[in-house]
Amino acid sequence: MQLLNSLCHIPAPAGNEVALTRFILNYVRQMSPGWQHQPTVIADERFQDCVLLVFGQPRTAVFAHLDSIGFTVRYGRQLVPIGGPRAEAGYRLVGHDSQGEIECTLTIDDETGELGYAFHRDIDRGTELTFYCDFRETATTVQSCYLDNRLGVWNALRLCETLEHGIIAFSCWEEHGGGSVAYLARFIYETYGVRQALISDITWVTEGVRPGLGCAISLRDSLIPRRSYVDRIRAIAAESGIPHQLEVEGSGGSDAKELQLAAAPWDWCFVGAPEDHVHSPDELVDKRDIESMRQLYQVLLQKL
Amino acid sequence: MQLLNSLCHIPAPAGNEVALTRFILNYVRQMSPGWQHQPTVIADERFQDCVLLVFGQPRTAVFAHLDSIGFTVRYGRQLVPIGGPRAEAGYRLVGHDSQGEIECTLTIDDETGELGYAFHRDIDRGTELTFYCDFRETATTVQSCYLDNRLGVWNALRLCETLEHGIIAFSCWEEHGGGSVAYLARFIYETYGVRQALISDITWVTEGVRPGLGCAISLRDSLIPRRSYVDRIRAIAAESGIPHQLEVEGSGGSDAKELQLAAAPWDWCFVGAPEDHVHSPDELVDKRDIESMRQLYQVLLQKL
Amino acid sequence: MQLLNSLCHIPAPAGNEVALTRFILNYVRQMSPGWQHQPTVIADERFQDCVLLVFGQPRTAVFAHLDSIGFTVRYGRQLVPIGGPRAEAGYRLVGHDSQGEIECTLTIDDETGELGYAFHRDIDRGTELTFYCDFRETATTVQSCYLDNRLGVWNALRLCETLEHGIIAFSCWEEHGGGSVAYLARFIYETYGVRQALISDITWVTEGVRPGLGCAISLRDSLIPRRSYVDRIRAIAAESGIPHQLEVEGSGGSDAKELQLAAAPWDWCFVGAPEDHVHSPDELVDKRDIESMRQLYQVLLQKL
Repeated sequence: MQLLNSLCHIPAPAGNEVALTRFILNYVRQMSPGWQHQPTVIADERFQDCVLLVFGQPRTAVFAHLDSIGFTVRYGRQLVPIGGPRAEAGYRLVGHDSQGEIECTLTIDDETGELGYAFHRDIDRGTELTFYCDFRETATTVQSCYLDNRLGVWNALRLCETLEHGIIAFSCWEEHGGGSVAYLARFIYETYGVRQALISDITWVTEGVRPGLGCAISLRDSLIPRRSYVDRIRAIAAESGIPHQLEVEGSGGSDAKELQLAAAPWDWCFVGAPEDHVHSPDELVDKRDIESMRQLYQVLLQKL
Repeated sequence: MQLLNSLCHIPAPAGNEVALTRFILNYVRQMSPGWQHQPTVIADERFQDCVLLVFGQPRTAVFAHLDSIGFTVRYGRQLVPIGGPRAEAGYRLVGHDSQGEIECTLTIDDETGELGYAFHRDIDRGTELTFYCDFRETATTVQSCYLDNRLGVWNALRLCETLEHGIIAFSCWEEHGGGSVAYLARFIYETYGVRQALISDITWVTEGVRPGLGCAISLRDSLIPRRSYVDRIRAIAAESGIPHQLEVEGSGGSDAKELQLAAAPWDWCFVGAPEDHVHSPDELVDKRDIESMRQLYQVLLQKL
Repeated sequence: MQLLNSLCHIPAPAGNEVALTRFILNYVRQMSPGWQHQPTVIADERFQDCVLLVFGQPRTAVFAHLDSIGFTVRYGRQLVPIGGPRAEAGYRLVGHDSQGEIECTLTIDDETGELGYAFHRDIDRGTELTFYCDFRETATTVQSCYLDNRLGVWNALRLCETLEHGIIAFSCWEEHGGGSVAYLARFIYETYGVRQALISDITWVTEGVRPGLGCAISLRDSLIPRRSYVDRIRAIAAESGIPHQLEVEGSGGSDAKELQLAAAPWDWCFVGAPEDHVHSPDELVDKRDIESMRQLYQVLLQKL
């Protein structure tokens, strides 16, 4: 889990993912010689801070978003959320501005509910703050901020070790309205003819999706994927014998939103481990679900 | 109205429209030899479960969505809505799962308002349920679930009988956030240069749009179409002498949303009969408005 | 300010911008011979009522929306808003319908809050009404309806006087959900390879953005632009010595929304003067902020 630990420590709030992009590119450069198949790495200004890894003759693309939730410093000592972070007074936040490194705490106004920070000095307007990373591992669990979606990124990087045919797409802005998947999807569809997608992201523990019972295959969230594609994925998962769970929600979203609305006929399915304490510094995932997610992606990329 | 009756009985909740797609393709195969002009039928994996019928040298495309509202089975005996169905305890719902056919009733928790079902057994997670179809016809009205939008589909199929130049586009997911019109519109614009659209769909009876006074031409709903295009349609309708009404709303939407936001300069207008008891099992439309809609589309496709 | 005065008087509610389009085309025809460089004017049915002015070898596109907020006449004497106008009983509204010119007043139902109009006769269904224009200029301020966004349009037209390389894009529907920037952006990106944008629009006076302190550079609103691009703009602005302010908001939007979600990798930044009494007939802007905006755009188009 050293790789996951490293990924969770790198600040990459939506819109400013560049530090994580550099880490990914460096990691690929260092590790890919040991992978079974070598990908083409696509990362230039046409793709902003996104990265594409193209293996063999791809039929399916895996989307894993790099960005995280966080906060932007507004005026006075106000904060504005990036995405939908959970907010509790006392959360430790980190960042840096023109005056140096910052470690401050989140405050919440009792009356107005307005978010702010407590720090010994004012922080530059527009500075991004992210959760302080306290990475905790036990025999059965991993706990940290930003498992959503560093675990999805980790899963995609582990998949690279054995992947023969497929595309890994590391996207930006997922937590804050999207903004990169539309052009990634267009490039992938027009260049490779690929229109099958898996969303490598983290979902919620609920009354129907329990920790330890395996990776979740989502039948729907706020959007509804094409039934026939999801049914194919369910059949492959069932045949594989890998533990998994079926999720049905009426809310929530992912990079799939941009695929669904793209000007190309994308089939997509969200396949990811469930976590507890979503969007907090204490996101918690069961290691069995991580292992199930890793195995499921290997099989799905072969069979789809 | 036998065709409309058949259309209303086929389950096609958003995301799983395939049964209706097959019906349409079969109908076109059987009936098109009797039409005045033969269309090119386009229906393959590039268009998921959508169907395009291209007649002659098209200038205008008619969009009619295949999908309907409904419910997805969640956990326990909970239901999650597909689109925005009206919900009343006791509504009869149908579907099927791994254990066979289902006919159950809708329940609503008195305290939480949570939707559920009453049935003698648990239903598989992710199963789609749709309203039981009780099709009722009188001398002056038609009443059934899913007149929205089987009546729009019916109107498009009837239009085919005489259509010389034009495109019929049967779309998916309209009731649940969209997902097919973006790529249909792109294909149509890039292949045929067509950027005029009519939305063959059903609207609401309100204080300003009354049953029996003719098909509604919508001047706006939650979106506002380009005025100059709508004015051309109004002029053609006025000149035709066919009864019609002008609708002005601040809410509601249709397949036009994806046209409006498309990366192509689509002009669009919603033209459809009004119904009462919207999104319930008892949608009610006046036959005069159906006839007005049918006639209006014939004229508009000739004159636009 | 005669040009701005003229621009504010022309009705162009979202969806019916054509009068302003004609004014712009006429203005360009008359004035461009005096500009330092001649643009290519692109305005035809592929762009609906939008206008593109292309200068030299462009690297950056400036988007200025033509449309404004307003009201649509519904049934009875009801009004439906176009965009998000401020509504106060007694506001003077103007328009015209089949019976001639209209000058009426806005009414608000005490109990329901429903919008309506008071006039000596019924107004045709679907008629658009806009604020009566009372243009007021002092030594230090300009006040009128529709400074949002006639001031952004004015700024773009003034920029044309000296512009060597760049694109001016006059867009439609910004105030009501968008609908033209997607195709403008696609054409610009595919034809010229341009993917840098500035949004020439008007923002809000707040506790952090004060009148008279210079044009605002927005670090974010409801969407978050790519940090590295905004940082480049900040550096150019700082080096220029032109007064400006940094804005950080959690809500609000602009033409940038369609750029952010486009199937192309647009970098964008909102750069515009702040106004008080937003979306009312009394929008108020400090002349120093107008001058700062004008100067900043000149520098940015040279340096970006």
